Amino acid sequence: MSTFKVKVLYDFQGEPGTAEMSVYAGETLSVTRTDVGEGWWEGLNPQGQSGLFPEAYVERIESGPPNIPPPMPPAQSGWGSSTTDNQDDEWDDDWDDDNTYSEIGNSNNSNNKNKVEQSFYANEPNQNFNNQVSQLHRPNYNADNVSLASTNMGDNKGTITKKSLNIFSASVKSGLEGYILGTTKDGGSSISKRIRIYRDSDDILGRWEPLTQPYTVQIASPKKATKMGGLKSFIAYQLTPSFTNIEVSRRYKHFDWLHARLTEKFNLVAIPPLPDKQVSGRYEEMFIEHRRAQLQEFINYMCRHPVLSLCEVWNHFLTCTDEKQWKQGKRNAEKDQLIGASFCLSVDAPEKELMNSLVDVKIEENMRYMEKMDQCIKNLMQTAQDQQKKCENMYKREFSRVGESFFALGSAFEYNQQGMYSKASVDVKNIGTTYLTIAKLYEEQGKIDWQPLFDKLYIYKGITANLPEVLNMQRMAEQKKKDCERNPQVQQMALTDVRRRADVITYTVFAELNHFQQERDQDLKRALKDFLQDQLNFYKNIVTKIEDTLSQFE
Amino acid sequence: MSTFKVKVLYDFQGEPGTAEMSVYAGETLSVTRTDVGEGWWEGLNPQGQSGLFPEAYVERIESGPPNIPPPMPPAQSGWGSSTTDNQDDEWDDDWDDDNTYSEIGNSNNSNNKNKVEQSFYANEPNQNFNNQVSQLHRPNYNADNVSLASTNMGDNKGTITKKSLNIFSASVKSGLEGYILGTTKDGGSSISKRIRIYRDSDDILGRWEPLTQPYTVQIASPKKATKMGGLKSFIAYQLTPSFTNIEVSRRYKHFDWLHARLTEKFNLVAIPPLPDKQVSGRYEEMFIEHRRAQLQEFINYMCRHPVLSLCEVWNHFLTCTDEKQWKQGKRNAEKDQLIGASFCLSVDAPEKELMNSLVDVKIEENMRYMEKMDQCIKNLMQTAQDQQKKCENMYKREFSRVGESFFALGSAFEYNQQGMYSKASVDVKNIGTTYLTIAKLYEEQGKIDWQPLFDKLYIYKGITANLPEVLNMQRMAEQKKKDCERNPQVQQMALTDVRRRADVITYTVFAELNHFQQERDQDLKRALKDFLQDQLNFYKNIVTKIEDTLSQFE
Repeated sequence: MSTFKVKVLYDFQGEPGTAEMSVYAGETLSVTRTDVGEGWWEGLNPQGQSGLFPEAYVERIESGPPNIPPPMPPAQSGWGSSTTDNQDDEWDDDWDDDNTYSEIGNSNNSNNKNKVEQSFYANEPNQNFNNQVSQLHRPNYNADNVSLASTNMGDNKGTITKKSLNIFSASVKSGLEGYILGTTKDGGSSISKRIRIYRDSDDILGRWEPLTQPYTVQIASPKKATKMGGLKSFIAYQLTPSFTNIEVSRRYKHFDWLHARLTEKFNLVAIPPLPDKQVSGRYEEMFIEHRRAQLQEFINYMCRHPVLSLCEVWNHFLTCTDEKQWKQGKRNAEKDQLIGASFCLSVDAPEKELMNSLVDVKIEENMRYMEKMDQCIKNLMQTAQDQQKKCENMYKREFSRVGESFFALGSAFEYNQQGMYSKASVDVKNIGTTYLTIAKLYEEQGKIDWQPLFDKLYIYKGITANLPEVLNMQRMAEQKKKDCERNPQVQQMALTDVRRRADVITYTVFAELNHFQQERDQDLKRALKDFLQDQLNFYKNIVTKIEDTLSQFE
Repeated sequence: MSTFKVKVLYDFQGEPGTAEMSVYAGETLSVTRTDVGEGWWEGLNPQGQSGLFPEAYVERIESGPPNIPPPMPPAQSGWGSSTTDNQDDEWDDDWDDDNTYSEIGNSNNSNNKNKVEQSFYANEPNQNFNNQVSQLHRPNYNADNVSLASTNMGDNKGTITKKSLNIFSASVKSGLEGYILGTTKDGGSSISKRIRIYRDSDDILGRWEPLTQPYTVQIASPKKATKMGGLKSFIAYQLTPSFTNIEVSRRYKHFDWLHARLTEKFNLVAIPPLPDKQVSGRYEEMFIEHRRAQLQEFINYMCRHPVLSLCEVWNHFLTCTDEKQWKQGKRNAEKDQLIGASFCLSVDAPEKELMNSLVDVKIEENMRYMEKMDQCIKNLMQTAQDQQKKCENMYKREFSRVGESFFALGSAFEYNQQGMYSKASVDVKNIGTTYLTIAKLYEEQGKIDWQPLFDKLYIYKGITANLPEVLNMQRMAEQKKKDCERNPQVQQMALTDVRRRADVITYTVFAELNHFQQERDQDLKRALKDFLQDQLNFYKNIVTKIEDTLSQFE
């Protein structure tokens, strides 16, 4: 193809040692190849250097195709689509742009896959496409699960955000209407596992049955792998569940796919968030190690959750090592019909009928609680992030300066010593060295205490952001129940069922709230305690350094 | 007089509880009285409030008298001048503007004094005026001490700064020429005390005879006194020398006068600096207490110095309690003829003739050393001042923010507790309280460690700035000696005396250098050690706070 020019829209840092080239917003590049594949183009920068850059980061200068969207728009699920064109590779993590390439079995036949899955591409509607789920909190919708009796079918093909609290449309889309009215049927085999809600004398509203076989999953330091003859590299994380002890290899895009499934399936359970996608410094060791820690937090929350930790798609994600089985499991998960409110079909809730007045108060109270928690968690996250940066920059700089000032004075002490040993000089220089050491401690400290605290809070921020929508499911169920009660055509018998199902929703919502409360008081509190312990160690370390220096003083 | 308007040039903080009014740069004031006296005017601020403000801080808006100089120009000695006008009260500390008023005997007859001393005012030359000494490092000049044989009389009425190293004019003005040539005679009774220079096997060049009766002087927390019926108030410091145990009352202006006398008398001994004059916040308790600490540092250095601690003007300053005697002592000090290089007439130096080559190397070496020390001390002072400010502002703010973030999260924990006790909430709020306490510790810390370090370094900065001029005296003496050696008219006998006197200068210079070195290794080093100890205590305190909080965690 003939050469054309493009303008760089966003900074991109090429990975050193690869064919990638760093490009900067505003630069004009001459494109020399567009058939590199996987969203990469080859071109010359203004300095005449040649290299690869992401097509999505540039805009054609001559009249050409319409503007390409920015690299991270509200993402579009890439499941089932392939990467044969330059338009659809932003959905995934930036280094995971080759989503047809499976690393499950470590086969290297991505080129074949590209051909096979070509028909799934872009706007051709097909079965898989319907199952695409936004990575954002898009409410669950599966046409099969919605009662055809509903009068609100008109807009259920539109994209709505989870923030939309229009009760009527939302109650349909969430599968709530179908469930409350009893029109949703379980998919038979789908309910392999029933979830129980317990209710002690202490719990007014019940809690999830605790896990009988708790397990953990370790995510090991990730490996950098390459494909396409070294042209592209990616990061693979090694996960080892304690119940199998078999390592599985997963990329960020697999987590992303899992997260989309979980969000689709559960709207009565808050799903912990995945770490944000991040572009810059993606191959830096620190970034990779940090993402590992973030994914570990996600995994830990999943493992501790009595519902999530037992669900099939999660189990598939943790255990599958065979590429064929992986694909089959993916298809099964995407066809799962027991999603949204119909999840309650698998819930065994206490029989006791609930009192509306008590429940309403508690829902209101928890709404305010979540709002407050969300706000305070965000605030502490901001502080943590800020302090981490300040450890690495400001505090380090301040203590370095203190150290340098003392050290220089100690050195000046030697100026009239004619090279002779001066204890005073050594002592003063030692003060300098001590503060330089403390500066180093500060530099490292942010990653030791503030960053893990931030990562923990990040999970809870996601949960407190999701729980209001869980709470809202209860309100919608209540509303639907009242609608039925006011409807003279609904028979008494049917009404009893409706009330029971609304109660199951309420029990489910409170079991989930109870779990959050338990996590807060155990997991979050332990993280805060760990933080404090790390801070203690840090200041003790400073004390030791100063003590050592003082003890050497005459 | 009729009202006129003025523009405020500098911020001024009025002392609360007095007639003073805070005014801010850029404001327009309506002046209602200019006859308040002592440089104060009365006026209305833009809010219509009435109060006193310093005339020197404002500028007349209408065509009026020429602009008044800023409040702290290179100061002009106020000795002997009175304050009957608004133009000449900047010489002294801003609250010491009434320098005719003696607080020595606490008499309250300032109005009479004003009249008596009126003729001394301003530019009328008189005997006292000649004795005025700049508060800046103005080199000593006393016409009586200069050999009339000198050919360099032409410019000795001009103002020269101490930085002027023109050897010929400086050697005359410093009294060096007269001393080396033997034309300066001691004033007889002036040499009541001889100063010895010792020389051990260790000391190549000798050191001051150590003090046989060391003493200390305590400066107590200053009192605020008033005069002129409460219109003006001033600060009096109470000094108690250990050898009399009798308290004397001194104002800053008395220190200032003393410093001028010392600077005039000694150019072979480095005089420690007085604290800088400072305008803002002058009546704040913290400022007053800090100035006390600074003056204590000045006093301590004086007391430790084998020459300065014994000199008459210092003794007079420390002991005089009678106003008449005070005035007599002042006059005597101002007439002292044994000043500048002629101080060496009172020095008993070792007999051994010095080797030029060795001395020259050592002088060069110490010149470089002083330059380096001066630079490094200034640098560390800057750091100390910076850190002190950061303790009070930045670090305090950072830790407060951390504390607030945790505390808010702990409070949010209570939102679904319906007023019930929550241990988790208490624990998390405790983290918040801990960091708020640490923020408070930081706020106070700067005054505990950085400020005293700064004050100590301030003394040494003054010394290292003065010592090069002391060193230069040796160079000038050497030059003068060489001039004599080259001059065929100088007889061998006279030459022997010239060489001896040049050696005495050299011995004196090295005794002073030796004293500095000793101070550095003892006093300064102890201050650095104290600083480190205070820092240790601070971090230990933080450790204890965090430990306490952790121990309360479940």
